[in-house]
Amino acid sequence: MRILGIDPGSVATGYGVVERHGPETAHLAHGTLRPPRGGELPARLAFLHREVARLVALHRPDLVAVERVFAGKSVRSALVLGQARGAVLAALAAAGVPIRELTPQHVKLAVTGEGAAQKSQVQAMVRRLLRLTELPARDAADALAAALCCAEEGRLGALGVRRSRPRGGVAASRRAWSARIVMRRSR
Amino acid sequence: MRILGIDPGSVATGYGVVERHGPETAHLAHGTLRPPRGGELPARLAFLHREVARLVALHRPDLVAVERVFAGKSVRSALVLGQARGAVLAALAAAGVPIRELTPQHVKLAVTGEGAAQKSQVQAMVRRLLRLTELPARDAADALAAALCCAEEGRLGALGVRRSRPRGGVAASRRAWSARIVMRRSR
Repeated sequence: MRILGIDPGSVATGYGVVERHGPETAHLAHGTLRPPRGGELPARLAFLHREVARLVALHRPDLVAVERVFAGKSVRSALVLGQARGAVLAALAAAGVPIRELTPQHVKLAVTGEGAAQKSQVQAMVRRLLRLTELPARDAADALAAALCCAEEGRLGALGVRRSRPRGGVAASRRAWSARIVMRRSR
Repeated sequence: MRILGIDPGSVATGYGVVERHGPETAHLAHGTLRPPRGGELPARLAFLHREVARLVALHRPDLVAVERVFAGKSVRSALVLGQARGAVLAALAAAGVPIRELTPQHVKLAVTGEGAAQKSQVQAMVRRLLRLTELPARDAADALAAALCCAEEGRLGALGVRRSRPRGGVAASRRAWSARIVMRRSR
């Protein structure tokens, strides 16, 4: 199962591709899409749409994980981010690939054991879990984290564990995920 | 000069096409794009992107007028609207058509002489100015109004009048536009 993670943004859109083989999740690719600087908004959105379509055609993921936006934004930044998300989601749906939206809290919890983790912590854990030689850039790390989160959940799902956000409270799910992370660390 | 006006929305996206021949602005087409109900967000955005590309290919406008979003929205609605705008703008830029963004105040002022006009007033004036036999639906009326605003401004521009929002204050510009509207009404 191959998963493409995308973290849409108006300036930089991170992406990351992982593949799950049984109990292992392997890194395939990651990077950042940056529309040409100084371009007009519509041209930058068209760039995003085109590049996302290209990523899907290149990597042929079985699932795409996209970060849902959290609420603590201003109206202005929500509009700007919404526009980038609109271009990305339109390209993904046109390519016919299944999409799973995840909250940043959910993703952070999955890879760091802490729903309010710092970006730098996500970078460090993504590097560790995927055994990367270098620290991925922040947007790419967020995208890899989203992909990783889906990959791990798919595995838990196969074991009969709920895929969606657990209702048992954050603490319980944090313990569960922390246990998983510890397992990986100890290998 | 042919102008396509678009009023993007998550539920309904209005569009309208007008053509300016010398002093006259004629109606060519208008309608509303409605993504299939009950569809997932990405599929609805892909629908919007596809249908906007189709509109541009069909009508071959020289310019597209898109309403800019005003600030008085919630974060949630700004995000939702931003997504629709992102899909629309990406399709327009991919088609290579020049885009002009206009504030709703500017458009309302141009067609009704009042920057804070009601939607129903915009509908009535669009119908009158374009000599339509029926009242256009609200989203389509807003799109036609944006197209009409660009068409009229292009004409004023040719006469040496500033195209962009006038600095002389709203009252002065309101008088100017009202005069134009009266001219049209009296024909």
